[in-house]
Amino acid sequence: MTDEHAHPAAAGPEPPVILLTCGDPAGIGPEIVARAWEATSLHRQARLRVVADAGHLAALLAARPALPRLPVTVVSPDDRRDSTGSELLVIDSCTRPGGHTDAVAPPLGVVSAAGGRAAAAAVEAAFHLVRRGAGQAIVTGPLHKESLHAAGYDMPGHTELLARLCGLPDEAASMMLWLPATEPGRSGLGVVHVTLHESLRSAVARLSTTGIVDAGRRLADLLRALLGRPPRIAVAALNPHGGEGGLFGDEEARIVVPAVGRLAAAGIDVTGPVPADTLFLRASRGAFDGVVALYHDQGHIPIKLLGMHRAVNVTLGLPLVRTSVAHGTAFDIVGRGVADPASMLAALDVARRLVTGGWPAGVRAASAPSLPRTRR
Amino acid sequence: MTDEHAHPAAAGPEPPVILLTCGDPAGIGPEIVARAWEATSLHRQARLRVVADAGHLAALLAARPALPRLPVTVVSPDDRRDSTGSELLVIDSCTRPGGHTDAVAPPLGVVSAAGGRAAAAAVEAAFHLVRRGAGQAIVTGPLHKESLHAAGYDMPGHTELLARLCGLPDEAASMMLWLPATEPGRSGLGVVHVTLHESLRSAVARLSTTGIVDAGRRLADLLRALLGRPPRIAVAALNPHGGEGGLFGDEEARIVVPAVGRLAAAGIDVTGPVPADTLFLRASRGAFDGVVALYHDQGHIPIKLLGMHRAVNVTLGLPLVRTSVAHGTAFDIVGRGVADPASMLAALDVARRLVTGGWPAGVRAASAPSLPRTRR
Repeated sequence: MTDEHAHPAAAGPEPPVILLTCGDPAGIGPEIVARAWEATSLHRQARLRVVADAGHLAALLAARPALPRLPVTVVSPDDRRDSTGSELLVIDSCTRPGGHTDAVAPPLGVVSAAGGRAAAAAVEAAFHLVRRGAGQAIVTGPLHKESLHAAGYDMPGHTELLARLCGLPDEAASMMLWLPATEPGRSGLGVVHVTLHESLRSAVARLSTTGIVDAGRRLADLLRALLGRPPRIAVAALNPHGGEGGLFGDEEARIVVPAVGRLAAAGIDVTGPVPADTLFLRASRGAFDGVVALYHDQGHIPIKLLGMHRAVNVTLGLPLVRTSVAHGTAFDIVGRGVADPASMLAALDVARRLVTGGWPAGVRAASAPSLPRTRR
Repeated sequence: MTDEHAHPAAAGPEPPVILLTCGDPAGIGPEIVARAWEATSLHRQARLRVVADAGHLAALLAARPALPRLPVTVVSPDDRRDSTGSELLVIDSCTRPGGHTDAVAPPLGVVSAAGGRAAAAAVEAAFHLVRRGAGQAIVTGPLHKESLHAAGYDMPGHTELLARLCGLPDEAASMMLWLPATEPGRSGLGVVHVTLHESLRSAVARLSTTGIVDAGRRLADLLRALLGRPPRIAVAALNPHGGEGGLFGDEEARIVVPAVGRLAAAGIDVTGPVPADTLFLRASRGAFDGVVALYHDQGHIPIKLLGMHRAVNVTLGLPLVRTSVAHGTAFDIVGRGVADPASMLAALDVARRLVTGGWPAGVRAASAPSLPRTRR
C-alpha cells in the first residue's frame, strides 16, 4: 500500500514514459536534468528515463561535488519500473544498434565535436524509443549549435534533427515558446512566430495570410491540449499602432485581418491585429493564452523580459511530443551547481500535460505525417 | 527662519520656475497635476506654477470629492513667491494677450474641441512665459490627439506644437522616453527611436547611419545633463541575433556598425549593434543608461512591459526644457481619484534635473536654434 500510495499511477493504466536527454554534456544539461529529476513531482504520474551515455553521466555526477549525488542505474528500454527522485534511471544511448559514444567524455564548458555527437546520439536514441512505443515524449536539454556542426550535423538544433528523423523537411517543424504562469490562477503564455531566422526586411516581405493562419492553428491546437480548454489567442500587428488605420502601412488590412478572419471562421477564439506593444503587456496580465508574433524580435523581446530562463520550447508540426529548455548550454557556469532547473522542470510538466491531452493527435489527423517505419 | 528652512532655495540663487500644464482638462491631467503638486518634494528646489484656465481648474477640483481639495491662488507671471504643497499657484492662461478660454469647462471624459483648445492654450501660454524668462521648464499633462484636431490644430501633440512655436519644422523635435529607476543604486533607462510613426517596411528602408548618429548624440547629450556624468548607451541591432554575421540581413554591417563607430569617435561610451531581445533585458538590469531603438515597437514593446505608466517623455531638439507624462488622458477613469501621478512626479523631477544640468545648452551651441523673438 505504501508503494502504491507513492505511485498512484501504478494502480491505474500504464503511466506514460517520458525520455529526458541532456543535450550537450559539456554544458549545464546534465546538471539541470539531475536537479529536475530530484525536484519534480512527476514521478507520481509518469515514468522518467534519461537517455544518455550512462558511463559518462555517472562519472560526471561523481566528479563534481556541486552536482546532485544521484546514483545512476542503467535500465533496459522495456523495464517498467517506476522512477523516483532518489535514483537516475538511464537508458544507455550507446547500447542502441548504431548507437555511438566517444571513449572519453567531452571536455566541460567548451565547444567540441564529441559534445555535439553525444547530444545528437541521445536524441536519436530517444526518437527510436518513441517510434517503437517505449516512450511517449522527449524532453531535451540544451545543445550548442557549433558543437553540433563540429560533429558533422548540418542543422541548427534538435528540432530540425527530429524533423529529419521523421522524414519531414526542416520547415515542417516549428516551435512554441511557453512561459509558465508565475501567479496563482494564471495559465501561462504561449508564443509562436510566423517568421523567425531571417532579416527583418525579408520577414516583412514574406509575411502572408497563410503563414499567420498556419501558425495560429498550430498554436490553438497545442494550447487546447495543454490547457484542456479552448484557448484565447491574439495575432500581433506588424506596424506601430496596428498601422493606424492604414497611415503606417497596409499589411494589417491586406494580410493580418484576413488571417484573423480565417482563424475565427475555424472556431478559434482569436483577437487581432493587436498593436504589439500593448499586446504583450495585456497578454502578460492574462488577457490571452497565446500570441502569434510576426517576426523574431517581436516575440523574443517580450519573452526575454518576461522570463526566458523559465520558458519551454515546444515542438510543433511533428508527430511526437517534444519539449525542451529554452535556454542555452551556459558554458560559463558549468559544473558549479548554480544552474537553474526551472526551465527543465517546466518542460517536463508541459510534456506530461501534452501526452495526457492527447496531443499531437490533431497534427496526425490533419497533415498525416506519421513516424517513419524505416530509418532515414 | 522657519520659512527659510522650509525653502532653502530661497536663501541661495533664484530657484528655477517650472511650469505645469494639465493637458486636456477633460482627462486625468488636472488630477495628476494636483496630486503631484501635493506629493512632490520639488517645492524645496524650484518654484512650481500651473498654467491653466484658473476658473475652470478651481471649479473642477471643488466639484469632485475624490480629487485633492487644494485651494487655487492665481498669481502673476512675475510673482516670486515660493510654492508649497498646500496651495496651487496658477498663472491664468486666459489672461495672456491673445489667450483664449471657453465660457464653460470642457465636459469630462470625452473628446471635445474645448478640451483641445484648453490644452493648446495652456502650452502656448507656458511657451511665452519661457520665452520671456518667466519659466525655465515646461511639464505637460496628457492631451488627446482627437480633441486637439477638433480644436483646429493640425499636429499630433504638444511636441510638434512647441516645435512650431520655436519656428522649427515638426521633425526638428524628437523624444526620449525615460524609465525612472525602481531599485536603489540604479540610474533609470532612456530610449530614443531612430524611426517612429511609419510602417515597419518604411522604417527598415529609411534606416540610415546619419539617423542613428543623430539619435545617439541627442540621447547622450540629454543623459549627460540628466545623470551628471558620461552615460553608457547602446544601439540596437535591426535583425534577429544582430544579423547572425550577415546571414539574417546586412543592415548591421552596412548601417549600424558605421554609426556606432562615429558615435564612439565623438567620445560617447557606446556599444552595438546589440541583438534587441537581449539588449533590453541587459539594459533593464542596469548595463546601459540609454538605448537607441531603430523602430517604434522595438522600443515600445520593452518600455510598456518595464513600466510605461511611470515613464517620462522628454523633448529633444528644441531650445527649451520640456518633459511630459508618457501616458494618455485615460478618459475612462477621470474624476474618480484613482489616477496615478507617478509619471507626472517623474516628469517634474527630470525637468528640474535638466534645468540644473544646464540642458539644452549643447543643442543651442550645436544647431543654434534659439527661441524666436516674434510670435509665429
